[in-house]
Formats: sequence, C-alpha cells, structure tokens
Amino acid sequence: MTTAAHPTVNRRIVLAARPHGEPNESHFRLEEGRVPTPRAGEVLLANRILSLDPYMRGRMSAAKSYAEPVAIGDTMVGATVAEVIASHHPGFSVGETVVGFGGWQDAWTSDGKGLRKLDPAAAPVSTALGVLGMPGMTAYTGLLNIGAPKPGETVVVAAATGPVGSLVGQIAKRRGARAVGIAGGPEKCAFLVDTLGFDAAIDHRAEDFPEALAAACPDGIDVYFENVGGAVFDAVLPLLNPFARIPVCGLVSGYSATDLPAGPDRIPLLMRAVLSKRLHLQGFIVWDFAAQEAEFLREVGGWLREGGIVHREDFVDGLENAPTAFAGLLKGRNFGKLLVRIA
Amino acid sequence: MTTAAHPTVNRRIVLAARPHGEPNESHFRLEEGRVPTPRAGEVLLANRILSLDPYMRGRMSAAKSYAEPVAIGDTMVGATVAEVIASHHPGFSVGETVVGFGGWQDAWTSDGKGLRKLDPAAAPVSTALGVLGMPGMTAYTGLLNIGAPKPGETVVVAAATGPVGSLVGQIAKRRGARAVGIAGGPEKCAFLVDTLGFDAAIDHRAEDFPEALAAACPDGIDVYFENVGGAVFDAVLPLLNPFARIPVCGLVSGYSATDLPAGPDRIPLLMRAVLSKRLHLQGFIVWDFAAQEAEFLREVGGWLREGGIVHREDFVDGLENAPTAFAGLLKGRNFGKLLVRIA
Repeated sequence: MTTAAHPTVNRRIVLAARPHGEPNESHFRLEEGRVPTPRAGEVLLANRILSLDPYMRGRMSAAKSYAEPVAIGDTMVGATVAEVIASHHPGFSVGETVVGFGGWQDAWTSDGKGLRKLDPAAAPVSTALGVLGMPGMTAYTGLLNIGAPKPGETVVVAAATGPVGSLVGQIAKRRGARAVGIAGGPEKCAFLVDTLGFDAAIDHRAEDFPEALAAACPDGIDVYFENVGGAVFDAVLPLLNPFARIPVCGLVSGYSATDLPAGPDRIPLLMRAVLSKRLHLQGFIVWDFAAQEAEFLREVGGWLREGGIVHREDFVDGLENAPTAFAGLLKGRNFGKLLVRIA
Repeated sequence: MTTAAHPTVNRRIVLAARPHGEPNESHFRLEEGRVPTPRAGEVLLANRILSLDPYMRGRMSAAKSYAEPVAIGDTMVGATVAEVIASHHPGFSVGETVVGFGGWQDAWTSDGKGLRKLDPAAAPVSTALGVLGMPGMTAYTGLLNIGAPKPGETVVVAAATGPVGSLVGQIAKRRGARAVGIAGGPEKCAFLVDTLGFDAAIDHRAEDFPEALAAACPDGIDVYFENVGGAVFDAVLPLLNPFARIPVCGLVSGYSATDLPAGPDRIPLLMRAVLSKRLHLQGFIVWDFAAQEAEFLREVGGWLREGGIVHREDFVDGLENAPTAFAGLLKGRNFGKLLVRIA
C-alpha cells in the first residue's frame, strides 16, 4: 500500500429535501464525516473537480427515470476528476489522476471499477468531464447515431454554449452541415458565431425568437438536437423538414416544472407532424452508446489536440458552492461546461 | 389497337366540399361524363374494385400533408383494380387486369406508368388492394424497418382487424413476438384471436380499456404500431418499455378532429417519456420503402399462397355507395379491408 498525506475530514453534500419546482440551496446540506479507509483492492480518491450537469435534477426527484433517484440524506452523485491518495489496488498508484463517479464530496474509495486514468499531458484533466467526457460523448453519439447530419443540411441545437450543444454544432460543421445555435443572451450568441464557428446564433430570450429562428433556417431544419424542450421546441417544430431527425437528449426547461402547461393538449399536433413529415424522434442517454467510447475519445481527442474544436469551461471554486452553481445551471447562468474546483 | 365493347358513360365521384369534421355524403358528388378516349401509347381501363383507405380523409382537406389535396370538383383519388378495355400501348392487351391509381370512377386512361399487371391465378386480384397491396406493404415495411420486433417482445396494434393491423399482428407472430390487437367490439376481438392467431385482443370501446390493455401486456409493450392515436395512444404510452419503437403510420381517430383536445398540454409528458424510456417514434408512409416492394410481394405473397396468413375483405357493391362506405371506414364500421365493387 502507498499513501500520501491527506486530510481526515470528508465534506460531502447530501440531498436534504426533494425540490418541488426549482432546486435551491435548501435542498442540499453540507455534512462532515471521516475520510473513508480503503480496504484491500481499493483506492482512496480525493476529488479535484466535480462536474455539474442537468441530469442531476432528475436524481433529486423520487420518480425513477433511467436511473435510481438519490435517497434523502445520501451524497449527491456526479462525475469527478480525482487523485489517488492511497492505494491498496495493484492497478493504481498514489498521485495518479482518474475520472470516475465520485459525487459531491472531498474523498471516496473505489475498487477501481468505472475509473479511467487520465494523462495530464494528453489533455487538461478537466476535459474528461466535458468535451472528452460524458457531455462530449453525448453530443458525439446522439448527433452521429440519431441525428446523422448530411452535408448541406441544417442542424439546430439549443443550450448551444454548453458542453453538449457546443460540440453538437462543431461536429455538425465538420460533417458539412449548417450549424444554428440557440443560447440565452447576446454574449453567448456572439461566442457561438465568432469563436465556435456556428453559422448563426439566436437568442431565445428575444421577443422575436421564433421569427429569428425561422430566418436563420431558410431551408428548414433537418436535425434538431433536443436538450431543452418547451418554447424552443415549439419554435422548432414548424420548421422541421420532412425526414428530420430529433435526438432527444434532455429537456432542461421542464425539469423543474410542477405542472403541465395550460391546454389545449398538443400531443395530436405533434403526432400529426411526426406522421406527415415522417419525423424520427428518439430518446437516448450516452451509455446506450457505451461501445463507442473508444472511438469517441480517439476522434474528438484528435480534434482537440489539433485545435480543431473549441471548448469553454466555467469554473466555480469550492465544494460548498456547488448547490448555488447547480441551481444556476438549470437557469442557464453558466457559460460553458460548469465545473466545481474542490480544494 | 384493340378494343372491347365498353360503356360510353363514365360515372365519377368528385370532392364537392371540404369537410369540417367528419365527412359524409354531402362532401361528395356523383357526376357523369364521357368515357375518355385513349391516345397513342395509352390504355383505357375499367375499374373493377376501388380501395377505400383512411389516408383519403387527408386528401379531402386543404392542408398539404405528404401529398397534395384533391381539388374541389376533382375526382377522388384511390387505388383500383382495373381491366384493360382498349389499348394503344404495346405492353398491355385488352382483358388484362392491373392495379393502379384509378380513382373513384368507372373508367380512366393511363400511359402505363404506375400500373402493375396482376395474375389472377397467383392470388385473387382484390388482394392487390389489401394484403398484397399498399396496406399490406405498409404493415410489412413499417413493422420490420421501424418496429423491428424481436422474439418474445410484445407488439401492439390498433384497428387490428383492418388490412394493415391484421398483417402487423400476423407478421409479429411469424417473427416470434407476442401480438396484442385492439379493435372495436367483441366480434372483431374474437376474430383476432380465433382466426388471426393474435395472443390477445382488447375492445377499445370497453370501459376498462386501459386496464384490460395493461393486463394483456404483462411484460409491457416493445412495439406499438400507431395507426389510430387518441385514447388508444394514451393507454399505450404508460405501458411502453424502454427502447420501445413506435412506427407512426396513421392517426385515424384524429383525422376529422376540428380542434385540439382540452388541456393541459401533454407534449412535455410525451417528450419526457421519449427521453426517459429512450423511445423511438418515427413517421413513415409506405412509399418511403418503395425499394422493398419486390421483397414484400415475394415474402407476403408466399405466406398467402401457403395459407400462412389470413386476410379478410369487406365488400360494398356499387361506386355510388363509396361515400357512405368511406364515412363508415373512419368510424370503424368496416370489418376487414374495405373494397367497393364497381359494376
């Protein structure tokens, strides 16, 4: 066994209460406990960076989705970049950096399953939580497997400055498609066009949003990568071309909704569009395409090393600030991949 | 040129008015004109059997769907089995039987494009409008390309005694899946199980329809072949399994709706199901799979000759009765493939 000097107190953020509506700080609680002791075959890991992602809102609710909810009093789940600070595992040495599912806390133990070692020389380790991590792979697999954009087609994505949307647009461009991004506010929109190379960017907060989107898509929409739902979907629907593909990756605008919107019930309208335009809607989560992880890392990792794609990170300092940062994420307050630096 | 003795008056049923809501006899008008004279390279065809199909409701509306609407005063469109009664075309001889898009009328001319010759010895010619025609191919291509049922899976189809639904269930069985049919009334339900070999049949008019459907699908639903929408879809949605496939072929329950149903707006509910269950919804029309026509005719034709599949026809006599029969079709009054015998 090898061990580095390390703190003995483990701070962790637990789910204190299930939110009805938007989550805020009152739904979380910071607790302190002892850093766990790794057993034979285990490593002790100190989290360095915590990823905050919209799917976590689902884990705070009691309803089972594709994963079990976090129990009240349990540590919030999440992917982390962590450092090995003690090892009883032959495959890991103190000082190595890994990405794993460490949760909202300082330290944790693992038997090594689900850990992937990171080479800080190959790419900044934080990218394992963003462009080279779950969000990047979500964009890559959802766009290419379901969206399947062809040269000259128009691809629209919302939350476009986020880690998923920004890669969706850049991959679409690499495949010869037109990329139209939707984001909140002029600063994000300028970033999409000027820095990420999107063909157009539309501010969903603008009063004329539906008209502006239509104007930015003069040939209609062939692929809509859905990660927000709500008013954005409503504006997209009439612009969809025959045979459009809609990878349904997330619906963040509705994650904290407590009621369905007022009527009429527009399911028949949506289904009529599916039929008459022969739309292809398909929900997915990234691990449905787990077999493509190596291909994803090779291809997107290569683009990143060549400087062929741009990614943006939004760092927050301190585990204790994770709840506020997470609440802001659901409102689009972050600008780029939201990460929490843990001391 | 060859010519058979034939009538000189052509009766045709034209679209008299666009229905707002359910169509009835007042939206059609029987007109008489001269039988057209075929020009060089053309054949003159006498319709023997007219197919009535739900898609015709869409053609009566002004809104463009995947095809242009029928203009007011124009002959209603539809597939027919017809006999060549005069020919200026080297490829066709008087007395031959073809299937084509002859419309609601006695006689028409064609340059031969879109005609397919039928061999009455191979199968009754009426099957070219049903099990071996557009409805059969709709079932075959939609189920196999989008539904892709696997052995042991549960396939649900509504309007199950109709020409599409009855073949969907029988193909599902041949692929090793469980077939659950939905139909209106006990007689149709008994036919599904006793004659077509469905594993279960549920009467959508029964008060406990959603509960009965759930009981008939103890392992959930893996493929829902959508051709009705409305209350049936609502009962199916909570029973869908993760990764369920929904070929969207038709929405007959809503074709004559004049308004959307009362709220709340359940689009977010549907989209959440698409996401959390990773559903695959895809609209299609049969001609999207036109390249598979030969394969369809070979495979389903073979089953039919072997007696491996059952099909049921519901004949109405007389072109003049087509409007009433068509209005009944949209209300499920037919029992089997609805066909009009033309004198």
